[in-house]
Amino acid sequence: MANQLPGACSCAVMTAFKQPIEVREYQLPDDLRPGEILLRTELAGMCGTDVHLHKGELKVPLPLIMGHETTGFIAALGDSNTRDWLGTPLRVGDRVSFTVGRPCGKCRYCRVHRLPSRCLNRKAYGVNTPAGDAPHLLGGYGQYHFLYPDTAVFKLPDDLPSESVVGAGCALVTAVHGFERLRMQWGQSVVVQGAGPVGLAALAVAKEAGARPAIVIGGPRDRLERCKRFGADLTIDIEETPDPAKRLKLVREATYGLGADIVVECVCMPQAVAEGWELCRDGGSYLVLGHYGDAGPTSLNPHVITRKELTIIGSYGSEPQHWTVALEFLRERRKEYPFEELVTHRFGLSQVNEALTAVANWQTGKAVILPNG
Amino acid sequence: MANQLPGACSCAVMTAFKQPIEVREYQLPDDLRPGEILLRTELAGMCGTDVHLHKGELKVPLPLIMGHETTGFIAALGDSNTRDWLGTPLRVGDRVSFTVGRPCGKCRYCRVHRLPSRCLNRKAYGVNTPAGDAPHLLGGYGQYHFLYPDTAVFKLPDDLPSESVVGAGCALVTAVHGFERLRMQWGQSVVVQGAGPVGLAALAVAKEAGARPAIVIGGPRDRLERCKRFGADLTIDIEETPDPAKRLKLVREATYGLGADIVVECVCMPQAVAEGWELCRDGGSYLVLGHYGDAGPTSLNPHVITRKELTIIGSYGSEPQHWTVALEFLRERRKEYPFEELVTHRFGLSQVNEALTAVANWQTGKAVILPNG
Amino acid sequence: MANQLPGACSCAVMTAFKQPIEVREYQLPDDLRPGEILLRTELAGMCGTDVHLHKGELKVPLPLIMGHETTGFIAALGDSNTRDWLGTPLRVGDRVSFTVGRPCGKCRYCRVHRLPSRCLNRKAYGVNTPAGDAPHLLGGYGQYHFLYPDTAVFKLPDDLPSESVVGAGCALVTAVHGFERLRMQWGQSVVVQGAGPVGLAALAVAKEAGARPAIVIGGPRDRLERCKRFGADLTIDIEETPDPAKRLKLVREATYGLGADIVVECVCMPQAVAEGWELCRDGGSYLVLGHYGDAGPTSLNPHVITRKELTIIGSYGSEPQHWTVALEFLRERRKEYPFEELVTHRFGLSQVNEALTAVANWQTGKAVILPNG
Amino acid sequence: MANQLPGACSCAVMTAFKQPIEVREYQLPDDLRPGEILLRTELAGMCGTDVHLHKGELKVPLPLIMGHETTGFIAALGDSNTRDWLGTPLRVGDRVSFTVGRPCGKCRYCRVHRLPSRCLNRKAYGVNTPAGDAPHLLGGYGQYHFLYPDTAVFKLPDDLPSESVVGAGCALVTAVHGFERLRMQWGQSVVVQGAGPVGLAALAVAKEAGARPAIVIGGPRDRLERCKRFGADLTIDIEETPDPAKRLKLVREATYGLGADIVVECVCMPQAVAEGWELCRDGGSYLVLGHYGDAGPTSLNPHVITRKELTIIGSYGSEPQHWTVALEFLRERRKEYPFEELVTHRFGLSQVNEALTAVANWQTGKAVILPNG
Repeated sequence: MANQLPGACSCAVMTAFKQPIEVREYQLPDDLRPGEILLRTELAGMCGTDVHLHKGELKVPLPLIMGHETTGFIAALGDSNTRDWLGTPLRVGDRVSFTVGRPCGKCRYCRVHRLPSRCLNRKAYGVNTPAGDAPHLLGGYGQYHFLYPDTAVFKLPDDLPSESVVGAGCALVTAVHGFERLRMQWGQSVVVQGAGPVGLAALAVAKEAGARPAIVIGGPRDRLERCKRFGADLTIDIEETPDPAKRLKLVREATYGLGADIVVECVCMPQAVAEGWELCRDGGSYLVLGHYGDAGPTSLNPHVITRKELTIIGSYGSEPQHWTVALEFLRERRKEYPFEELVTHRFGLSQVNEALTAVANWQTGKAVILPNG
Repeated sequence: MANQLPGACSCAVMTAFKQPIEVREYQLPDDLRPGEILLRTELAGMCGTDVHLHKGELKVPLPLIMGHETTGFIAALGDSNTRDWLGTPLRVGDRVSFTVGRPCGKCRYCRVHRLPSRCLNRKAYGVNTPAGDAPHLLGGYGQYHFLYPDTAVFKLPDDLPSESVVGAGCALVTAVHGFERLRMQWGQSVVVQGAGPVGLAALAVAKEAGARPAIVIGGPRDRLERCKRFGADLTIDIEETPDPAKRLKLVREATYGLGADIVVECVCMPQAVAEGWELCRDGGSYLVLGHYGDAGPTSLNPHVITRKELTIIGSYGSEPQHWTVALEFLRERRKEYPFEELVTHRFGLSQVNEALTAVANWQTGKAVILPNG
Repeated sequence: MANQLPGACSCAVMTAFKQPIEVREYQLPDDLRPGEILLRTELAGMCGTDVHLHKGELKVPLPLIMGHETTGFIAALGDSNTRDWLGTPLRVGDRVSFTVGRPCGKCRYCRVHRLPSRCLNRKAYGVNTPAGDAPHLLGGYGQYHFLYPDTAVFKLPDDLPSESVVGAGCALVTAVHGFERLRMQWGQSVVVQGAGPVGLAALAVAKEAGARPAIVIGGPRDRLERCKRFGADLTIDIEETPDPAKRLKLVREATYGLGADIVVECVCMPQAVAEGWELCRDGGSYLVLGHYGDAGPTSLNPHVITRKELTIIGSYGSEPQHWTVALEFLRERRKEYPFEELVTHRFGLSQVNEALTAVANWQTGKAVILPNG
Repeated sequence: MANQLPGACSCAVMTAFKQPIEVREYQLPDDLRPGEILLRTELAGMCGTDVHLHKGELKVPLPLIMGHETTGFIAALGDSNTRDWLGTPLRVGDRVSFTVGRPCGKCRYCRVHRLPSRCLNRKAYGVNTPAGDAPHLLGGYGQYHFLYPDTAVFKLPDDLPSESVVGAGCALVTAVHGFERLRMQWGQSVVVQGAGPVGLAALAVAKEAGARPAIVIGGPRDRLERCKRFGADLTIDIEETPDPAKRLKLVREATYGLGADIVVECVCMPQAVAEGWELCRDGGSYLVLGHYGDAGPTSLNPHVITRKELTIIGSYGSEPQHWTVALEFLRERRKEYPFEELVTHRFGLSQVNEALTAVANWQTGKAVILPNG
């Protein structure tokens, strides 16, 4: 293990729901076992989910270091033979990112159903990995981050900026997973409900996969402008067009009068679902991508599913191979889909509360915490 | 055209919603053009949909001769070269059945999307084919039935009783269509919600396709007994087990603790959908097969779709190739799935009102009208 | 019917295999029945298949007016209510194209299997529609072209040049059909074997569908240059790299050492298939798109299919909905995929023999016959 | 580790290709590490592949203890917390079976492509696990069998005889895998080429999945008789019908004149493939299941793939989840598919040479080695 590491480091810790995040000191591990990695955190993206966690909407264990969209530099390796998920040897100083979820690999979902995103024993850094006990450093909002040997780590190529990775965040891998399940065909018309990070990622994947046209319904205006830069053929501003019937009319005019082949929900607003079903043509597909969080029930008519012969698909989180796809995509299509532009706000470790407020109020593109300044 | 045909015949006609059905006389067509067929009706099944039509829940045009599950004998042919849908030459006296829906073959759904079940100009005998104008005889509840040249007619094989065809009714072709969209794999566990005609048909298809186990939730008891005869591995009586949590527990016990690979909704009760989603394992599929009619909205949580990574599929009506599958299946698997047993009640043309009451009160297996006695 | 039509017109007619094509006069139809259309031919593309037909490699009936990639102007309509396949009303003077194949709509392939490209009674203009009997004018290499009512006609939009349509020819709809069957996912690596019209069309569809990388193996150099303009990430010149082992090495270097996710055969050379299987990664897909003609058997090892867990897909011709996709694609992506550039050589009706020689010797991009000068 | 274990045990060892198998003594391991298991072998099935291995047709390392279809009793466990692949705790004395292949879990096939059957570093007991070095006991033809911790072990339920498991052997899991890739639909017609173990397993899966009809082409007569007991609707004896054209005629007569929806190759004879393609209807699927071994190339015409729009699928070996499916199927459908009947010949450890001869000469159903008597 490298000599120059400090004995302890600062972390932004959630000790109670709805209360201010506190900066605390935690010990670095004395020693690393084979496969374990210690990172010096570079960028820690703030996901909308963190706002929900802070409100206590998911029962996560406390105290918690949040942050699940992270890049860092390898500060120490437990094992000189450590490799990243794709087999690349890792060295101290390498810049890496990693998947947040760690499935057990042993339950019936992991094994029989090959559905590790629904592992019965899934651990997720920054979500259900409390900081109380060693190794403490299990979230992005800290100067150092500990990684267990079963973490899928990815060495970042030199021509891929960390801002691209954190700008895309967990939104992009979520979209990659969702579109894998959707099996969109090139030339299909796609409506994306929502212009936030998940909506933008869904738009990018849809365009890259040959959507024609790709339509975004959302707001506010600057987000829709970014959608246009990412290739949206049509954007519908919900402030300018608050009437769902008018939005339906606009979508139908762009889709031979029938509705879109595919509609992708990216807003986590239950009431968007009924509108989304109407926006689909008969025989179309509806991907529920934005309801990672539980925003409660809504009124829906099952008859619509039967009558319109819809296919409705849910997709939850992501798996490491979706990271492989996402990282390649980010690197090779930076010009067309400049995800680094999303990083609009940077905060220090002591400013996590301000960052949470800014994200909650939709004031940011993507807010990023820089734990080491 | 054959000489012995009468000039007119009796039909049971719905002249107003919720009012008694009347028996009226209608003229037989003077002459048939090429491809047109006149049937002497043999059996006319009464579908649960007819009860809904009679209540005025769908805006169908009046006066209407209902009946869309029909067998009959060819009384006259407009053309001596007429063939059935599979190319078999047709002769006067042949026993046939036919698909109810007639898509236009020209709209974007018929052509571009190959989705004729959602044809924009679809006509359905006994549903949206009013009797006011010639050729009048456009529903099963009449002594004679007129068929347009674009009707998919099927000559019935001698070893397939008409009771099997009408007993299976539109439920079986609906299930065939639904399972085609579902793409079930052999060995998957299947829960069927509902023990009525659609549920029984879904059970038969699931068993034939290798479901293991096949579970039916429904009632009343005699319907569940029939499900057992059709091969259900487990039946759950909703009267004996009114608590959904207990039903979920029973299903999970039969499916490795996780829920079923596939759940098929066959009850047209919106509240069954939320229960059905819970009965699925994560990554499972939910087929909404029973909501042909609009039974209104219900409270549903989109988060469940995302979190459980469900695939939810709607399927509407059927197409002629589903008839091909269904008729072969009925004939070759009569011993395992004796659909003719469903025909429990027979009524004359003047007893349609009694029949509607019996069906509405779930007193029948399958009620059948015999317009010619 | 319009008054100004001549009584007869000139056509280039194949009267015997391997013999010079002759220019003959044929009568125009006296009258058109409802749905029938008479076109004044504008452009008639020469497909490589025509060379094979002329060599007698397919047993087509003679005399034959070849030409199955045609645009023309409506000269006369049998019916004032005639519409194109998508429902647009047609008028004299409209510029149109049309599908070559006319399935019967009644056989088991058309009906039960929904596979009209394999109709048992399929007719194809310019291929199996001899000119001996009226209406004679059943191929593109004539001044006028007769269309039966069951032809799928497409009115061409004003912003889509006929050169684009004929430049893309039947190659593009063939590729659209093939990729529909292939169900490629965005981000997959694709190798196209062949740089001719089918290869170029496959490349365009692959790129549009998000192939990464898209690699073309073929020649000669100017065709590969065109492939680069159409977006090929890598081209491998078979003259420069005649050793298949080296080509395999180049492909593997571009695909993580394993081979491509998808390989598309577009050369109609049987020996390309064994190489193509090697170019696939294990678990990859191989689309046999270029073997419309029968070029005979070759030596292949079935063990490779098992060991590599390949999926090998054949696709034959096209259906009208593939035209819908292709025409929209041509119009909306003209800048990225300038198919009109393929039209490099133009010939008059008396020069069909020269055109056949030029195409047989690979001297042309796309050769086009202008029957009316 | 249990006290009563001997220090060494007897094994049948292949020391050179085409030479007699020798019985040798090998040391049992002194100690087991966590997760390691030592079995006392009960039954070791002889697969046709073993005959090929003995002939030297695959370059496997020597000396080798063959045998990759094995049941045994746990003699010692390295770890008291050892569980089987589905999480069931394991105890000394438990009867188990296990998958032969051990993928590395780390290569691009294991990770990115989720294709562990094509792992770049796959180890297979009895195939590429030489006996020269400790732990020596890595094949079924020995009194004891060593299992590494990454082996997928399955505790056998009490109501599932070992003869069923070994009778089904690797043929059944191979068929389970193949049909998973095939995605057969219920009601499809299926032709199985071959009546040996793989053919019988494919027949069983096809019938269970609702094949109608299920046809087997093969021999000799007693194998076809067993196919009939397993539910074959039609068997075609290649000795009685040696002319492929007549076999094609028989298949077409049973499939509406067009050929089968699905044909499954289970004979490892390359020349069967060309016949198999002809037996498919246009648009049908062909599963190459029997070419695990390399039997060399054959003459095939790629045009047939295009013209018939075939889908040709390869499937190699199996994965642990296919074992889960197979074991459940064996247990629950023993009456319909009595795989234990296949075990017709039993041999001691010193009779392996006789067994190889018997299997090579097709004299057996399934030959089984009983290493402990």
